Amino acid sequence: MSDSEDREPGTIAELTERLRRFAEEREWQQFHTPKNLAMALAGEVGELLAELQWLTPEESSRLMADPELGGRVRAEVGDVMIYLTRLADVLGIDLVRAADDKLVEVARRYPVERVRGWAAKAEGS
Amino acid sequence: MSDSEDREPGTIAELTERLRRFAEEREWQQFHTPKNLAMALAGEVGELLAELQWLTPEESSRLMADPELGGRVRAEVGDVMIYLTRLADVLGIDLVRAADDKLVEVARRYPVERVRGWAAKAEGS
Amino acid sequence: MSDSEDREPGTIAELTERLRRFAEEREWQQFHTPKNLAMALAGEVGELLAELQWLTPEESSRLMADPELGGRVRAEVGDVMIYLTRLADVLGIDLVRAADDKLVEVARRYPVERVRGWAAKAEGS
Amino acid sequence: MSDSEDREPGTIAELTERLRRFAEEREWQQFHTPKNLAMALAGEVGELLAELQWLTPEESSRLMADPELGGRVRAEVGDVMIYLTRLADVLGIDLVRAADDKLVEVARRYPVERVRGWAAKAEGS
Repeated sequence: MSDSEDREPGTIAELTERLRRFAEEREWQQFHTPKNLAMALAGEVGELLAELQWLTPEESSRLMADPELGGRVRAEVGDVMIYLTRLADVLGIDLVRAADDKLVEVARRYPVERVRGWAAKAEGS
Repeated sequence: MSDSEDREPGTIAELTERLRRFAEEREWQQFHTPKNLAMALAGEVGELLAELQWLTPEESSRLMADPELGGRVRAEVGDVMIYLTRLADVLGIDLVRAADDKLVEVARRYPVERVRGWAAKAEGS
Repeated sequence: MSDSEDREPGTIAELTERLRRFAEEREWQQFHTPKNLAMALAGEVGELLAELQWLTPEESSRLMADPELGGRVRAEVGDVMIYLTRLADVLGIDLVRAADDKLVEVARRYPVERVRGWAAKAEGS
Repeated sequence: MSDSEDREPGTIAELTERLRRFAEEREWQQFHTPKNLAMALAGEVGELLAELQWLTPEESSRLMADPELGGRVRAEVGDVMIYLTRLADVLGIDLVRAADDKLVEVARRYPVERVRGWAAKAEGS
């Protein structure tokens, strides 16, 4: 189930364009309000969680070794990326840039010198 | 609040590497089991939904015009991207490729000729 | 699809007991850590959102009039209640009391005299 | 943080009525479309998950022993119950009955004789 193949990794920009055309061809833009896309995103994240909910942390770390489970998880991750990318496009947000800007904030709140060694569980936002 | 600036858009690969180093510097990898990362992802999606929950669909379409609300939504989208990218890295999944593979499936299920014109609401997975 | 029948409405205490026995009979308590139950809860809420995501607000207000859609939504609400009740039991939390205590807080933050009339969107937590 | 006190446990019917009055007094019913309430529910479940995301399963089992963490989790559970109860009311769904009906289905799918002993992880819906 590895993704380390020889083909070019696609870019978010290309995926964004494909999703835009996909929606336009089917006249689905009417449904793609930020509100609906956020709900769809939450729905797919829910499906992803459902695949992991009964696993122990260790089992979850090995899940990609199981072809069926790994395939299902990869499909759900793909769905989450679809809706996140589409939502970002509709809102005019650059996903990587937004992530980077947030990461700078978090780094400021949890500087390495202060947190290395002890378990700082309050990472991220 | 537009992201259409002149600098180079970052790539997911670069973001992935930054997140990896971020976690390693702080010795946080121990917390980054797929289970925990999926929960963190769901938590951030919840915070994103909270920003949109009382808006009408039309208000949600205009939200980026409001500097404060737009800034908060962009920050939450950034958080969601952080955890999705980190989860994909830990699982060895290429986000764009997983999304593309899913899109091919959906296109097959909802070919343009069949769905254009009528409201097919069951898009995606 | 109305639930206004003549039989006694069941109580949460009885549902809690049934869920406890249900898990014990199948030796599933091992999977019912608060972490797993919270993930399961999020998974079911995701499935509920998926039923509503493409509806307009007005369509969502009429959804119970559609026997199929209404039945699916009712089933998902039932699943959410199952996991919320089980999680509350495992944590020793009284659901109604916890909700009431929170409501008192919210009422204090949004007193009627102050908010009646204008659209105060920041209700709840 | 125990809820085993001497006062009468409240009923869902009473909570439902209190929430109805709470919304009407503030003229907030306009915001309580099923769509919005489902999003609010997802938002609160996200906040609940955020409290548990970095805990090990064992730490999550002991969390109510910590007054601060236990208090925050109880508050989030209260918020989830608030929105679930309000959503059920707006849709005309009896929460306990919907849960019971779903439980009967699950019991049929996973009869005790068949599943006791081995780890059947596909419980619930």
